[in-house]
Amino acid sequence: MADSLNFQLEEELEFSSADDEFDMNSSSVWKILIADDDEGVHSVTELVFNSFSFDNRPIQFINTYSGKETLEVLQKEEDIAVILLDVVMETDDAGLRVVEQIRKELKNNMVRIILRTGQPGQAPEEQVLIDYDINDYKNKSELTSRKLKSSVITSLRSYISILKINELNTTLERKVAERTAELAASLEIIEKDEEAGKKIQFKLLPEDNMEIGGITFSREIFPSLYLSGDFVDYFRINERFIGFYIADVSGHGASSAFITVYLKSMISGFIGSYNHNNVELILKPDELLNVINQTLIKEDLGKYLTIFYGLIDLEKNELHYSTGGQFPFPVLLDRKSKDFIRFKGPPVGLLRIARYKKEILKLPRDFSLIFMSDGILELLKDKTLKEQESQLLKILTYESTVTSLIENIGIDSTRFLPDDITILNVRRTASE
Amino acid sequence: MADSLNFQLEEELEFSSADDEFDMNSSSVWKILIADDDEGVHSVTELVFNSFSFDNRPIQFINTYSGKETLEVLQKEEDIAVILLDVVMETDDAGLRVVEQIRKELKNNMVRIILRTGQPGQAPEEQVLIDYDINDYKNKSELTSRKLKSSVITSLRSYISILKINELNTTLERKVAERTAELAASLEIIEKDEEAGKKIQFKLLPEDNMEIGGITFSREIFPSLYLSGDFVDYFRINERFIGFYIADVSGHGASSAFITVYLKSMISGFIGSYNHNNVELILKPDELLNVINQTLIKEDLGKYLTIFYGLIDLEKNELHYSTGGQFPFPVLLDRKSKDFIRFKGPPVGLLRIARYKKEILKLPRDFSLIFMSDGILELLKDKTLKEQESQLLKILTYESTVTSLIENIGIDSTRFLPDDITILNVRRTASE
Repeated sequence: MADSLNFQLEEELEFSSADDEFDMNSSSVWKILIADDDEGVHSVTELVFNSFSFDNRPIQFINTYSGKETLEVLQKEEDIAVILLDVVMETDDAGLRVVEQIRKELKNNMVRIILRTGQPGQAPEEQVLIDYDINDYKNKSELTSRKLKSSVITSLRSYISILKINELNTTLERKVAERTAELAASLEIIEKDEEAGKKIQFKLLPEDNMEIGGITFSREIFPSLYLSGDFVDYFRINERFIGFYIADVSGHGASSAFITVYLKSMISGFIGSYNHNNVELILKPDELLNVINQTLIKEDLGKYLTIFYGLIDLEKNELHYSTGGQFPFPVLLDRKSKDFIRFKGPPVGLLRIARYKKEILKLPRDFSLIFMSDGILELLKDKTLKEQESQLLKILTYESTVTSLIENIGIDSTRFLPDDITILNVRRTASE
Repeated sequence: MADSLNFQLEEELEFSSADDEFDMNSSSVWKILIADDDEGVHSVTELVFNSFSFDNRPIQFINTYSGKETLEVLQKEEDIAVILLDVVMETDDAGLRVVEQIRKELKNNMVRIILRTGQPGQAPEEQVLIDYDINDYKNKSELTSRKLKSSVITSLRSYISILKINELNTTLERKVAERTAELAASLEIIEKDEEAGKKIQFKLLPEDNMEIGGITFSREIFPSLYLSGDFVDYFRINERFIGFYIADVSGHGASSAFITVYLKSMISGFIGSYNHNNVELILKPDELLNVINQTLIKEDLGKYLTIFYGLIDLEKNELHYSTGGQFPFPVLLDRKSKDFIRFKGPPVGLLRIARYKKEILKLPRDFSLIFMSDGILELLKDKTLKEQESQLLKILTYESTVTSLIENIGIDSTRFLPDDITILNVRRTASE
């Protein structure tokens, strides 16, 4: 499928040129309407064009005797090329009214109109030509068969020109419709594919607002494209420990999303090893990051990630953690104070020699830990990192929730986000 | 980004209608070219149009005195509306030659040409009108100022009509270009994303034609879209055992590809557990499938997979395996015989109660094991499963390689494949 999509893209847009063979929808005659209340004019006109043909097509005459009848015929027959139109019929200006109705009501701008008048006083030539959208004006008294033929020929020629350009328009419009439909269909296939991928990826995320051992975990992820290079997870390990992490894979989209899935599966495996085989890696933040680092380097995928892996020790009321380049720094807030947890570590999957360290932090009785991926920085007005940090710290309060932060920072997921954005809140409000 | 893409798709295609205000590129005059070798004709003509205007625009005359000069001017000035063209100038038919050159060489089909002749014998009216693409024919001797004005007015009107439709064409073409560019850009972003994802996924595949302990593993995967729901892997576990699997996740594309990555990470984790903690799950095909089955059901992703997991016991020369719905059945071939390994098992991730069994098969000294994902069946002519099986068995020989199979079955990766297709060959040719 991939290749056929590309082929469509590379294909030059080719439209039929105006030089295409002229084809008047297989109609093989020129339809000319004679509108005149004088039967004699009809027969004389037809006599003039006896055995006449233009562009290898003969003429087929249609005869009407009033303005009203003329309009009725024009409504039904769309391919009339020329009208030889009398001015004075049921009224003194019946022909002129017909001109207006043809152009304005029927919106027929194709048919060529040759106005013929027996009483030029009723319709003075220059004024009529300027005021009415007609294509020739003939005084019946001066109209020789030669002049009539000339007028019809030039009118037919003009009709053909307009018909040609009009056909080009129709062709163009059809090509547009086809081309955009093709592109839209290709886009739809692949968008649906990414949507389906996103569903799976989001199913791998833990439930929002999950309460584990008195701690509430809330999270929100906004992918830049469909698939996210950010990821979070939290889980009970045993009676004493809860594990959680926020990770941000380099880049974004499908390729980065794959790494988040790989990571999720890897860490789920560590949980399984602990449950079934008592392997304690999941309880050792530093060693866990060492293993992930070595695994990613071994897989050689050209991707690395930043991660903060934490354990909440419910017994000692501590946060055990290790960080692999998580930035912005997490913020620890309680009812009185707030500050960044300014502990550093190299990104994971980048350096074979990287070694991670475990830190321990005493947790207040009530606390809120807020983690954000660096996509958030792109939404801040301040430009230097230092300014951004102080802006973030200003926005955050103990009461801040994921939802309130989304609003305060102004994350609008309906607009284009240059990078994935994730917010994770880990909170305990024991004193309520 | 997702939403902005959708927005573009839902947007109606709107093109300026033909009723748009007419705007002649801010040119505020009608340019009329008088081509005549008689200076008197120039001055008389200009006199006739003294203080004349049409559609609130005056006329600006351009004067030329030969066919050659006329063409030179027309080449430079593109917005000449009407030419009052003399027939006899430097030659008897100079004007007629000019008509041909305007239409055919300059490809100017817009300018309206009023042919004026003083010697009608040189250019008989009806014949000229039929043979040359002119818009009016006037005999100088009969040409009153009223008739000249009429002819110029109808010519200007006709010029405006053509100009309008032409502008519509230009607008249309621009809209097409814009619209297709937008769609193509959206498509490109998301295609690039999937391409990048594919790169990562393919990096997770083992090397093609890898030799492990005297066994050669070859594989090829053709995704239906960019990302594959099929996956294979093979790896040394210890001195005695080599592990391998072929898996096919339900569906295809990004969502299924995520599961392959999840699976790969999970199984890599089992290898790690064996290496670091001596957990022997990786050596127990049945238990391994049980664990994957339970894990997928627990993750509740709405996806299941078929898998054949095998171990080659180099010591006992046996194949230990367990299958989770792998179909078509693998084929074991040696130099004399070939047959399907018709062992069944339920797909993985579908039924909580599923339990997998381990089978052991004695391997010939030289053997070839061929595994294919069910995407291959869609390429076979035969329609019933039984017929497809016998067709496959007919195609396969001990000598068949992944490459020869691709050719024999006719897998054309440049064309659309309704499903992912994977071929895995596990082979030992010890006697060579």
